[in-house]
Amino acid sequence: MERCEVYLSEESVQELMRRLSRIEGQVKGIRRMLEEGRSCDEILIQMSAVKSAISSMAMFLLEEHFNSCVKPGVESGNVKALEDFMRAVRQLVKGG
Amino acid sequence: MERCEVYLSEESVQELMRRLSRIEGQVKGIRRMLEEGRSCDEILIQMSAVKSAISSMAMFLLEEHFNSCVKPGVESGNVKALEDFMRAVRQLVKGG
Amino acid sequence: MERCEVYLSEESVQELMRRLSRIEGQVKGIRRMLEEGRSCDEILIQMSAVKSAISSMAMFLLEEHFNSCVKPGVESGNVKALEDFMRAVRQLVKGG
Amino acid sequence: MERCEVYLSEESVQELMRRLSRIEGQVKGIRRMLEEGRSCDEILIQMSAVKSAISSMAMFLLEEHFNSCVKPGVESGNVKALEDFMRAVRQLVKGG
Repeated sequence: MERCEVYLSEESVQELMRRLSRIEGQVKGIRRMLEEGRSCDEILIQMSAVKSAISSMAMFLLEEHFNSCVKPGVESGNVKALEDFMRAVRQLVKGG
Repeated sequence: MERCEVYLSEESVQELMRRLSRIEGQVKGIRRMLEEGRSCDEILIQMSAVKSAISSMAMFLLEEHFNSCVKPGVESGNVKALEDFMRAVRQLVKGG
Repeated sequence: MERCEVYLSEESVQELMRRLSRIEGQVKGIRRMLEEGRSCDEILIQMSAVKSAISSMAMFLLEEHFNSCVKPGVESGNVKALEDFMRAVRQLVKGG
Repeated sequence: MERCEVYLSEESVQELMRRLSRIEGQVKGIRRMLEEGRSCDEILIQMSAVKSAISSMAMFLLEEHFNSCVKPGVESGNVKALEDFMRAVRQLVKGG
């Protein structure tokens, strides 16, 4: 069986949803700023905030994923979990 | 008068809106993936895509801003445009 | 036993050394450019090149490390290898 | 005349040299760690440190460059200084 059996905890998913809602609000903010003709540097600052929020959320997910899926998966002999993890890490590092 | 007089062109704003719509769709995609219990590495890949899209959009905005606001502003003696630009660059570089 | 037994292959170490020599040359280049009073934007471009080279070298090391240490380590039951790897990933992601 | 007339101050160059010496020391450290067969995650951590140091040095140079070259250049009507600056910013942002 290759998929991760033990998924993220309910608390982790809730925390991710909360973070995602904030990000959705921030993205809506960019749209509003463009519509209102706000100055470009203010919009760029808002974009940086979105990127930081996603980076932080991605790192949080990676940690949760590692703790609740990769480690238990590997301990029960699932080497595929390790390959999946490496693929995700590669994306995260290259994604900047 | 300190604000940028010559704003982004209509085409630039349209292009930014198009990019923003794609980003909003990608963010919705993350929510759906979390709800469906999709594997963590797929979600991380999607997050990297969002970050790349925002980075690319930010660079596009910076270029447009530079061409349609900073350069003309500076040419007409608006040094404030330069300070605003530097503040935006600082954010963009530090924002990763 | 917690340390990685199977170290990087000779070829990997040689490749890393080659990359490091290039990076050392690039860093020397920055010093020379500063001494010669070269324009700031040329120096910044050279700095970006060094950062790219280190990022690329770090990703190369992470891949080699994963293949020759983490995977074999985990397969022979060394969970510590996994924790070390996660610590390195964390650094790499946060290091930008 | 297109080149930046007012170069970085002596203090700025000294500070840049100090930072560069530290970076050279850190890069030598990577070589030594590879030669000593140090664990991969320690080497990756050292690499992240070098990248952070270069990023910080690049931002410092950008600030100094902006203050001592771009701003005075622009104020005395040198639009070329602005284009050079934008080219550097582009590299810095894309360089990650």
